[in-house]
Amino acid sequence: MSRVITISREFGSGGRTIGKKVAEKLGIPCYDAELITKIAEKSGFDKEYLADNTEGESGGGWLGNVFIRSEYYGKSNQDYIWQAQSEVIRDLAAKGDCVIVGRCADYILKGKADLLTVFIHASEEKRIERITKVYGLSADSPEKRLRDKDKRRKAYHRFYTETEWGRAKYYTICLDSGEIGIDRCVDIIASLY
Amino acid sequence: MSRVITISREFGSGGRTIGKKVAEKLGIPCYDAELITKIAEKSGFDKEYLADNTEGESGGGWLGNVFIRSEYYGKSNQDYIWQAQSEVIRDLAAKGDCVIVGRCADYILKGKADLLTVFIHASEEKRIERITKVYGLSADSPEKRLRDKDKRRKAYHRFYTETEWGRAKYYTICLDSGEIGIDRCVDIIASLY
Repeated sequence: MSRVITISREFGSGGRTIGKKVAEKLGIPCYDAELITKIAEKSGFDKEYLADNTEGESGGGWLGNVFIRSEYYGKSNQDYIWQAQSEVIRDLAAKGDCVIVGRCADYILKGKADLLTVFIHASEEKRIERITKVYGLSADSPEKRLRDKDKRRKAYHRFYTETEWGRAKYYTICLDSGEIGIDRCVDIIASLY
Repeated sequence: MSRVITISREFGSGGRTIGKKVAEKLGIPCYDAELITKIAEKSGFDKEYLADNTEGESGGGWLGNVFIRSEYYGKSNQDYIWQAQSEVIRDLAAKGDCVIVGRCADYILKGKADLLTVFIHASEEKRIERITKVYGLSADSPEKRLRDKDKRRKAYHRFYTETEWGRAKYYTICLDSGEIGIDRCVDIIASLY
């Protein structure tokens, strides 16, 4: 059974960077944006649409898609994507040890890999600082962007996984990257592998 | 400003043991049962009553006490205890670096000490194993005991702190002691001090 580190993260907490650094340190692959390409191949949906629909990220995206499902329409687009996403993640985990960032991998791989599940968070203040630095300015205020992203991730998670995003009991370890620092988070996670 | 490590924990997760070992390793005091004695001196309530009423532990305890409060009665016993408990914890933190187990110290000391806030949890299965080993058998099943204790701690926490017990964002670090192991938890916490 592969050993897989899954990283769930609040927007702006540096979780993606931590995932990449942990993978580098351990010499194993890290899947993040690459997942989108693979899900696209599997599902036939285009990448841009998927980027908006694999974590509840978009404005008119998955929430809308979820709720137009009915007995007349059968499965929603979102359900097809979820299925393709689950298959892609399971295939990757079956291939060998890796780090997977986001996309409910912790839930999808439960019982199917030797998991180290991580949740990365930080105060709003620290995340706003990081968002502005990493992603630059946009029309929306950073506060609005992070609250919106987190609200969607949380709702998406609850809809598909029946677990609660950000509740300690669902993770092996949760770290405040703002307090602890990115590099120290990397060291702790790598030491647990 | 003192550096204080606060340990919140699920019943049976080994959080108390972890707190003691961290303190030993760092050569600083750990306050747990000692707190009860000090709160007793401060409040005039007896120790046995306090053991049941400083974390929402007892059957007929704090919940009952909280709800009999009214404008005719003024403060409830529970409120007096909370006040004494807050003072004792602040006094201890002012004296120097230490580890404090439970009793909402993370909330009570916010802004009053340089805090490292820890939450320790474990699966029900692992906790039942530990409860039976450490506390022995009792009339209630271990499942009932841990659900009951956790329910009370959670409600108590919410009533007095306005934060949510066990939600990752309120802690610097959360650890699954069942997965990670007691000694490794101790090493990680001590390394962050």
